[in-house]
Amino acid sequence: MAKLAVVGAGMMGTALCVPLADRGHDVRLIGTPLDAGSVRTLRDSRRHPRLDLELSDVVRAYPSAELEGAAEDVDAFVLGVSSAGVGWAAGALAPLLARRPRPIAMLSKGLELAPDGVRVLSDAFAVALGRASPACHPVAICGPCIAGELARRVPTLVVLSGHDEPSARAFASWFTTAYYLPRVSTDVRGVQICAALKNAYAMGVALGVGLHERAGGERGSVAMHNYEAAIFARAVVEMGAIVGALGGDVASVWGLAGSGDLTVTCNGGRTGRFGALLGRGYRASEARAQMDGATLECLEVLAVLERAIDRRALGGLGRADLPLLSHLIDVGLHDAALAMPLEEFFPA
Amino acid sequence: MAKLAVVGAGMMGTALCVPLADRGHDVRLIGTPLDAGSVRTLRDSRRHPRLDLELSDVVRAYPSAELEGAAEDVDAFVLGVSSAGVGWAAGALAPLLARRPRPIAMLSKGLELAPDGVRVLSDAFAVALGRASPACHPVAICGPCIAGELARRVPTLVVLSGHDEPSARAFASWFTTAYYLPRVSTDVRGVQICAALKNAYAMGVALGVGLHERAGGERGSVAMHNYEAAIFARAVVEMGAIVGALGGDVASVWGLAGSGDLTVTCNGGRTGRFGALLGRGYRASEARAQMDGATLECLEVLAVLERAIDRRALGGLGRADLPLLSHLIDVGLHDAALAMPLEEFFPA
Repeated sequence: MAKLAVVGAGMMGTALCVPLADRGHDVRLIGTPLDAGSVRTLRDSRRHPRLDLELSDVVRAYPSAELEGAAEDVDAFVLGVSSAGVGWAAGALAPLLARRPRPIAMLSKGLELAPDGVRVLSDAFAVALGRASPACHPVAICGPCIAGELARRVPTLVVLSGHDEPSARAFASWFTTAYYLPRVSTDVRGVQICAALKNAYAMGVALGVGLHERAGGERGSVAMHNYEAAIFARAVVEMGAIVGALGGDVASVWGLAGSGDLTVTCNGGRTGRFGALLGRGYRASEARAQMDGATLECLEVLAVLERAIDRRALGGLGRADLPLLSHLIDVGLHDAALAMPLEEFFPA
Repeated sequence: MAKLAVVGAGMMGTALCVPLADRGHDVRLIGTPLDAGSVRTLRDSRRHPRLDLELSDVVRAYPSAELEGAAEDVDAFVLGVSSAGVGWAAGALAPLLARRPRPIAMLSKGLELAPDGVRVLSDAFAVALGRASPACHPVAICGPCIAGELARRVPTLVVLSGHDEPSARAFASWFTTAYYLPRVSTDVRGVQICAALKNAYAMGVALGVGLHERAGGERGSVAMHNYEAAIFARAVVEMGAIVGALGGDVASVWGLAGSGDLTVTCNGGRTGRFGALLGRGYRASEARAQMDGATLECLEVLAVLERAIDRRALGGLGRADLPLLSHLIDVGLHDAALAMPLEEFFPA
């Protein structure tokens, strides 16, 4: 058994502690400065405020101020921070890793636009760590995983991918339980590009829920599923085009990280609620206002993709190649009215 | 405007009459011998018993006995029969087509195992017509389309594909409205193999609904979506393998006919209800008994695929290449207990 530090006490980081505890690891769940409330609640009641279940007492929770002491002797780290927290995490972990390099896995999803092009988050984190840990090759954890389901031990397959395959295999070995089944992929870029893109495209699929509500429809098997399916299919095709253009393996798009993760992201969460609000007729600025300032990963990804297109850094793809993405950029970032260009999705 | 006969007054054939009527065509909806009740209801009330909406009075309904008179002067036919009705339709249409060959489109989905291998339904229908109409190249209508949504004018993209592209384009032109947008594909085999396979695989995705109910769960964003997503992703991968092995274009799998249609088929209908019953723990024979003898296209497709594997007619693919399909065959056709081999879906 291993000593593992999960850094970031959000839904997903906390949920991952369930299989780690079931495997009998020594698990330290360490909050970021934004997790102070969750850590207090976890210490008081063993419950995460939003996960709504009791954690095993094998999992010990620590506030961010106690990071160094709590993680000094761990064998490996798992980052459960949002993409916006990756910079903080690099600074916080640098001294620990400088004293002793250790494997790192990342639950964070996102893309960055660097001078050399679109960068996946595991590479961005390695760059952020810089000289503190020159040999660090983080392992990305991608694929379809709703935190609340993992925490309830729903059978879940995820994808682990990093430039150092032995690290990926080490995490797979630490993580595997009867219900949590990590698979290892060598497609470091493709898998993470899928993980980021699926947020943007799930916003598009979720429009159908809102359009249906707006038309007075009730939830059921007759709704806007035909419309959602056309967007889903086009999303898979565009994800394939982008992953291929950016040097990933398109096979990742057809599998867990692409089509699989897109299905679960459409099923709920912030991205789904935001897309549904847009479908109901709210402009993006109005929909954002209704979501109490929640971080919307779909918009962060759309912003990176828009800049990449503008700077011709999307592997030669332009807006005309990506009619769905292009409209999602207009609607999500520029308050355009929804007018889905379905007729551009597939040749007539 | 054209004179068009829709043969088969089931849900989908009747729903297709909505865009045809909106385009101003002269539409005759002609029942099969099994549709006598629906035709009577349509004549009495302009309502289809299961579609629950009123049809335009442009659409005239006829019983099967009036087929020849009602369809003598039409410009083209659309078959809305089930796969089991294709033989009847070939016999019924042969005299009309022998007198004057006319384009035919088919809403029917399915596969046949012929001595020369797996045959798609448009080819099977052409063979069944035989010498009655040697130049007949039926156009298959595939892609994500729930009948009740098409009838309510939900935006819907479908795929038309046949060996005679001008026929496919003629139907696309007749069908197109602001909300019904047929796209033409030249991948006659791939598109139809997807249309058949999606029924089998949707049964697999639907297991999650039943497993969740069995565990006492309520419908919501935390359910068995992680499990369903793993099955969905594996389904897309296996559909790609089968389409490629049988000479189709794998690009069809990523698009409307494959991933798109799989999403809507998981959303409801007979296949979804049957899969959910299996997930709740019923064996297939028990689940069938609860469904009042409804035709289960998923089981028909599974039976063809099992025979094709046994006769080495699935392009060299065997059960070991298709762990999800193999388990669905065991569960759906042989009353095996559900024990999804998730660990075989993707390499560890």
